[in-house]
Amino acid sequence: MDTLTIGLVGSGFMGRAHAQAFRAVGGLFDLPLTPVLDLLSDRDAATAAQAAAALGFRRHTGDWRALVADPAVDVVAIATPNRLHAPIALAAIAAGKHVYCEKPLATTLADARAMMAAAEARGVVTLVGFNYLKNPMIALAREIVESGDIGTVTGFRGIHAEDFMADPAHPFTWRCEPDNAGGALADIGSHILAMARHLVGDITAVAGRLHTVHPGRPVMAGAAGTRPVTVDDQAHALVEFANGATGTITASWIAQGRKMQLAFELVGTKGSIAFTQERFNELRLYQSGGPAGRDGFRTIVAGPEHRDYGAFCPAPGHQIGFNDLKTIEVKALVEAIGAVRAGRKAAAYPDFRDACEIERVAEAIRVSARERRWIEVATV
Amino acid sequence: MDTLTIGLVGSGFMGRAHAQAFRAVGGLFDLPLTPVLDLLSDRDAATAAQAAAALGFRRHTGDWRALVADPAVDVVAIATPNRLHAPIALAAIAAGKHVYCEKPLATTLADARAMMAAAEARGVVTLVGFNYLKNPMIALAREIVESGDIGTVTGFRGIHAEDFMADPAHPFTWRCEPDNAGGALADIGSHILAMARHLVGDITAVAGRLHTVHPGRPVMAGAAGTRPVTVDDQAHALVEFANGATGTITASWIAQGRKMQLAFELVGTKGSIAFTQERFNELRLYQSGGPAGRDGFRTIVAGPEHRDYGAFCPAPGHQIGFNDLKTIEVKALVEAIGAVRAGRKAAAYPDFRDACEIERVAEAIRVSARERRWIEVATV
Amino acid sequence: MDTLTIGLVGSGFMGRAHAQAFRAVGGLFDLPLTPVLDLLSDRDAATAAQAAAALGFRRHTGDWRALVADPAVDVVAIATPNRLHAPIALAAIAAGKHVYCEKPLATTLADARAMMAAAEARGVVTLVGFNYLKNPMIALAREIVESGDIGTVTGFRGIHAEDFMADPAHPFTWRCEPDNAGGALADIGSHILAMARHLVGDITAVAGRLHTVHPGRPVMAGAAGTRPVTVDDQAHALVEFANGATGTITASWIAQGRKMQLAFELVGTKGSIAFTQERFNELRLYQSGGPAGRDGFRTIVAGPEHRDYGAFCPAPGHQIGFNDLKTIEVKALVEAIGAVRAGRKAAAYPDFRDACEIERVAEAIRVSARERRWIEVATV
Amino acid sequence: MDTLTIGLVGSGFMGRAHAQAFRAVGGLFDLPLTPVLDLLSDRDAATAAQAAAALGFRRHTGDWRALVADPAVDVVAIATPNRLHAPIALAAIAAGKHVYCEKPLATTLADARAMMAAAEARGVVTLVGFNYLKNPMIALAREIVESGDIGTVTGFRGIHAEDFMADPAHPFTWRCEPDNAGGALADIGSHILAMARHLVGDITAVAGRLHTVHPGRPVMAGAAGTRPVTVDDQAHALVEFANGATGTITASWIAQGRKMQLAFELVGTKGSIAFTQERFNELRLYQSGGPAGRDGFRTIVAGPEHRDYGAFCPAPGHQIGFNDLKTIEVKALVEAIGAVRAGRKAAAYPDFRDACEIERVAEAIRVSARERRWIEVATV
Repeated sequence: MDTLTIGLVGSGFMGRAHAQAFRAVGGLFDLPLTPVLDLLSDRDAATAAQAAAALGFRRHTGDWRALVADPAVDVVAIATPNRLHAPIALAAIAAGKHVYCEKPLATTLADARAMMAAAEARGVVTLVGFNYLKNPMIALAREIVESGDIGTVTGFRGIHAEDFMADPAHPFTWRCEPDNAGGALADIGSHILAMARHLVGDITAVAGRLHTVHPGRPVMAGAAGTRPVTVDDQAHALVEFANGATGTITASWIAQGRKMQLAFELVGTKGSIAFTQERFNELRLYQSGGPAGRDGFRTIVAGPEHRDYGAFCPAPGHQIGFNDLKTIEVKALVEAIGAVRAGRKAAAYPDFRDACEIERVAEAIRVSARERRWIEVATV
Repeated sequence: MDTLTIGLVGSGFMGRAHAQAFRAVGGLFDLPLTPVLDLLSDRDAATAAQAAAALGFRRHTGDWRALVADPAVDVVAIATPNRLHAPIALAAIAAGKHVYCEKPLATTLADARAMMAAAEARGVVTLVGFNYLKNPMIALAREIVESGDIGTVTGFRGIHAEDFMADPAHPFTWRCEPDNAGGALADIGSHILAMARHLVGDITAVAGRLHTVHPGRPVMAGAAGTRPVTVDDQAHALVEFANGATGTITASWIAQGRKMQLAFELVGTKGSIAFTQERFNELRLYQSGGPAGRDGFRTIVAGPEHRDYGAFCPAPGHQIGFNDLKTIEVKALVEAIGAVRAGRKAAAYPDFRDACEIERVAEAIRVSARERRWIEVATV
Repeated sequence: MDTLTIGLVGSGFMGRAHAQAFRAVGGLFDLPLTPVLDLLSDRDAATAAQAAAALGFRRHTGDWRALVADPAVDVVAIATPNRLHAPIALAAIAAGKHVYCEKPLATTLADARAMMAAAEARGVVTLVGFNYLKNPMIALAREIVESGDIGTVTGFRGIHAEDFMADPAHPFTWRCEPDNAGGALADIGSHILAMARHLVGDITAVAGRLHTVHPGRPVMAGAAGTRPVTVDDQAHALVEFANGATGTITASWIAQGRKMQLAFELVGTKGSIAFTQERFNELRLYQSGGPAGRDGFRTIVAGPEHRDYGAFCPAPGHQIGFNDLKTIEVKALVEAIGAVRAGRKAAAYPDFRDACEIERVAEAIRVSARERRWIEVATV
Repeated sequence: MDTLTIGLVGSGFMGRAHAQAFRAVGGLFDLPLTPVLDLLSDRDAATAAQAAAALGFRRHTGDWRALVADPAVDVVAIATPNRLHAPIALAAIAAGKHVYCEKPLATTLADARAMMAAAEARGVVTLVGFNYLKNPMIALAREIVESGDIGTVTGFRGIHAEDFMADPAHPFTWRCEPDNAGGALADIGSHILAMARHLVGDITAVAGRLHTVHPGRPVMAGAAGTRPVTVDDQAHALVEFANGATGTITASWIAQGRKMQLAFELVGTKGSIAFTQERFNELRLYQSGGPAGRDGFRTIVAGPEHRDYGAFCPAPGHQIGFNDLKTIEVKALVEAIGAVRAGRKAAAYPDFRDACEIERVAEAIRVSARERRWIEVATV
C-alpha cells in the first residue's frame, strides 16, 4: 500500500495529538494510504530531536522551512502558534504539499483568504482542525437534521465555555494578544461557530458584544505588574442563518466550573437536539408526534451504529475520547488525499474554505461589537 | 387574628392557583392575617357561581366592577385575560384595595406605568405573579450572589423555552394578538427577564431579535383558514446589566421537547450557578478554589434549610411543586399587608414598580428588534 | 353535596400533611364527598387546641378515644407515633369508622394482621400512606408495565436511601427502637417494598442482610452517654417475585448525600424504566426496537396527560410536590368512601391488606437476616 | 532505550485493543521500555498474516505454541477465547514470558489458581485486563477512600448491566457455554466484583441468585431450532466485605437500554461516591460537613490533575476513551517489567493473584445460588 509521508511542525499539545492520530489511524480504519511519521520540526533542533524520538518520527529539523521544502514530505501538519499558520501553510502550498492546519486558520481574515486562494489555486488538499465536528454523535446530529426528521431548523443556541482564564491572576499569554487570534471568541468561540455552520448552515448576519472582564493580567505568573488586555473574555452574538433560523452564540473562557462546555440546543419544527461536549458520547434527541404521555428527550449513547465509532470499539457505551476525534479527523485527510492520488476530485472537510467562512463570521461579530449594529456577514 | 378578605377576578388556571394558594398559606406559614376566600367574579354569574363553589369562595358575582367596589374586599386578585389587568387594577386601586395581579402587568408599557403610579399614589400594596422568583432555590441563588461567594456576576445566559405553540397547526389564540401582550417574549420571556433582574440587577441596554417562525395559524383548531401572526415565536437578546455583566436572553414557545425550560447559567468571578425550572428543587453551584481534582458543580437539593421549604416539608429532597411557589408568593402579599396594617412601611416583591421595569426591558427588546440597533433601556 | 367528616389524630409532620391534603383535595378534584376538617386530637388538649387552630379544624380533644368515639367523625386519620397505630385503628374500626393510617401499619406483623382482619370484618374503607405510589409518573410506570410495552418484567433493583441518621452523633430516637418499627428497613425500606410490589407484583422469597453500622447513639443530642442500637442502619435483600422476576432491595438511612433516593431500575424483556424520587416529576423509559442508532432512555416529564397531574396544573413541566402526592392519596380515600356510600363495593389502594403484604416481606427479610438463609414469604 | 517485545495471541476486539494500546503507550507516557509489536498469532496463518499487517506487527504465525516458544518474545498478550487463556498462559509462563491476559483469567477457578501458582513460582510479571480499574476517576475514587475523607466505607451497591443479550432471538454463542466462563456474572459481573474489591477490599461472604431468563436461544441467527441455555442472564448477590461493609452486586446482560452501566454507589461514614461507566470521565462525590444548605453531590470532571489523564490531554473535560483505559493498563505492565529488569521487586495490578480473588468471589456466588445459603468466600 502507498504511504503518506507526514511532516509535523510543532510538538506541543496539538502536535502530539496529530502524531498520535496519524500513528493510530491506520490500525483502526481501512485507508487508501499508510501515514508515515517522517519529519518533525520545532523551534530548534534539540527540541525537535527530543520530540521526534518521543513521538516516533524518523527525522527532525529545527527549521520549518526545511521541512516544507523536503521532497519526501507529502503532508505538512501545522501545530504551531497561530501566527505561524499563514507563512508555513503558504510555503507548504507553494511547495505542493497538502496541508493540515490547526484552527484558527490565521490571525487575520486576509491571511486566511490568501491561504484558501493559494490552496485552491494549487489544488492541494487542506484540512483544518475543528475536531469536535468529527464526533460520531455530531455526525448523527447532522444526519438527523438532513433527514428532515426534526423538520426545519429554526433556532440554535450555542456556547463554548471553559474556565481556564477565569482567575484574574492568570498571567497574560499569547492568547491575550489581539494580533495572535487572541480572545475567547477567536480561541474557542470558533468551535461553536463551526458547529453552528455544520448543523444549520451559513450565518448571514450578526449582532455581537465582546466583553473584556479582566482588563489587565499579571505580566507573568505571580508578578506584581500587569499588562493591559484588550481581547474579549466573553463574547455574545445574535445570529441569523441563511435558512432563516435565528439564535445566539456565546464564547467564554472565564465561565467558572465549565471545562469543555461546547454545547448547543438546536430546535426544529418537529424536534430538537441538545448536546454538550462534556458528555460527548451522548446526544439528546426529541421528536414530536410520539405517543401521548411518553414523549421526552431521549439520551442516545454512542455505539458502533454511529459513524466511525465502531472503528474504536465494537460495543456501545464504551466511549471514545478526545484523541479519537483527532484520529477521525486525520482519516478524512488521508481519504481525501488518497482519492486525489487516485485521480478523483476530493476535498477534506472542513477545509480552508470552510475555515474562512468561520473566521468571517467571527470577524463580523467583532465589527458588530465595535460599531454596535448588525453586520451582514457578506460585507466582511 | 385579623382576616384578609380576598376578591378574586377570574377562575381559570391562574385563578384556581390563587385560590389554592390563599387556602393553603395559613396552614403552612405563621401569618399576621388570615386570608378569607370571600368573593369571586367571572365573566357571568353562572360561571362565577360554579367556580365559587368549587374553589371555596363564599360569594360570587358576574361583574368585576361589583367586586372591586365591594367594601368587604381587602385584596383584589386579578387572574383575567391580560387586557383586563389595567382597568381592574386601576379601579381596585381607586377603591383603595391592595392588588395581586398576574403577569404581564399590562398589555402596554404606558398602562403598566399608569398602574404603578396609581398604586404608589394611593399607597396600596401590590404584587405581580412572577412566581418562579419565589422558589427556595432561587432564594438560595440570590443569597449566594449577594454573599459575594461567587464574586462579581459577569455573565448571564438565560432562556425560557416551552413548546406549547410548536405545532404550526396550533390555532391562533389570544396569545397571538400583539395588543394582548402576545408573543413568546411577552408571554413567557418576561419570566426570564424577571429572573435576570432578580439575580443580576437592572438591564440597561439590549439588542434584540424577534422571530415569527409560523406567520399564520388556523383560525381555530382543525380549520382550513389561517390568520396571520405577527408576534414572535422566539426572541433573542443581548443584554448589558447595570453592574457591567453581559449576556443573552432567549424566549421561545416553539422549542420542541421543552416543557418548562426557565433556565440560566450565571457566571461570577469566583463561581457559577446553573438552574432549570424543569428540576426546580435543585440548584447547581460551582465555587472556585476548592481542592485540586475534587472541584465540580455540586447539585444542591432543596430542603428545610432553604427559605420557605420547611413550611411544606421538614425533610429535604421531598420537593415542593408549582402550586407551592404560588403559596409562597401569596405569603409575601399577606405579610406586606399585615405590616402596613400594623403601621409599618412595607412592600411586597415583585410589585408594580418591579413589573414595570421588566416590561420596560421587554419593550426595549421589541424596539431594538424593529430598529436593528442597541437600545438603552432608560430611553424607553 | 355530602360531606366527609375528618378526625385527625396527631399533628406532627404527617398530621399537617393530612390536614393540608384534605383541605386542598376538594378544590382540585371532582369528588363525591366534601371533606370537612372537624376534630383534631393530640397528646393533650392544649397541643390539640393550638394545632386545630393552625390547621383549620373546628374542634379538638386531648384524647384520641374521644375522637374515635365521636359520632360525627366519618374518617379517623392516624398520624401518631407508630406504636399507636394499632390501638387507634382497632378502636376506630370497632366504632365503624373508615381509617386512613400512616405507614408502617403497625409495629408487629401480628398487629397489622389483626387490623386488616378487623377492617375487613367490619367492612370499613382503609388506606395506608404509601404516598409515593400516588405519583403520576408511577401511575405511568405501572401503566407501561401493564400494557406489556416493555414485555415481561424480569428484574427490579430498588433502593430507598436517605442520610438523616448518617451522623453517628445523631441521638437515639424512637426510630431506633425495635419494638416501634425502628430501623431503616421498617422506616423507609417499606416504601421501596411497596413500590416493588406495586410495579412487579408479590415478592415470594427473600434473602436479607441487616446491618447496624452505628451500634450506639447518644442518649440525647450532645450527651456523652450512648444507648445501644440494635436496629438496622442499612438493609439489603435479594428478592424473588411471583412472576419470576428477581432483584435486589436496599434500604439505608445513613447514605451520605442522599435526601430522598427512593429509586429503582425495572427491566423488562422489551424495555426498561428508571426512576428516582429526587426527580419525581420525571420517568426514564427505554423501549427496544427503536430506529437503529437513535434509541435511548427518554426522559418523560410529568404533565397533564399523566394521571392526576392536570388537577394541579394544566401545563407540563411545572411540577407537583410532595404535599400534592398526599392530596392524590386522600382523593383515593374519598372516592372509595363515596362509592361505598353509594352502595357500590369499593376499596382504596393501598389498603390494610396491601400494607400487611408489605410488612410481611419486611418481616421475612428480618427472619432471613437472622437465620442467614432464604425465606419463603408465605411462611411468615 | 530497551525494548519490550510483544507477542499477541488473538486479533479480535480485544487483540486490536491490545495492539492499539502498545502502539500508543510510548508516545504518551515516559516508560522504562519501548514496546515493540513483534509477533501476532491467530487461528491460522492467513488470518494472522492479515491481522499482523493491519495492526502493525512485524511477524505472524498460525500457531500460538510457536509464539509462546519464540525466544524474541518478552510478553505474551492473550486475547483469545476464554478457554485458551489457561493453556497459553501456562505455556508462556513455563517459557519464562511475562503474561498479559484478558479477563476472565480462566474458565475454572482451579485453572486460575494453577496459573497464579505457576506465575508466582516462575517470577514473571502478570496483568489481567480489568481495564475499568485504570480510569483516572476510579484512581481518584480510591484515593478519596484511602484518604479517609469519606470516613469508613460501610456500603457498596454495584452493578454491571448491558443489553447485548436482551433479545431472546440473540443466538446461542460461546458466552452461553458454562464451561467457557459463560453467563452474565462471569462475563461482565467480574468487572463490578473487581471494582468492589478495588475500592472496598476483599469480599468475605456472599448470598447469590442466578437467573436464566431466556432458557433457550436459537442455535444461530434466524434459526428455528433452539439450544438450551443454563448460564445466568442476570445475577444478584448480597456481599460482606472484610472491613465490615455490606452491599449488593448485580450483573445483567439483558438490561434493556443499558450499554455500559458499570456503576456503583459507595457510602462511607462521612461521604459518598457515585459512578457510572456510561459517563466515565465524571465522578460524583459527596462529603458531609459542608456549609448548611449548600451541600450536595459534586460532579468532578476528569482533567490533568487526575492520574494518567494528562498524558492524553492537558485540558480538563476533553475526555479519554475506552482505548485510552487499555493504554493506561498496558503502562502498568511495562512499568512493572521495567522495574523487574532493573532488579527491583515489582508487580503489575491487577495480577493473576488479584484475578483469582475475583474469580473466587464469582464462584462463591455460584455455589451460594445453587445451595441457597450464604457462602464464606474463604471456603471456596
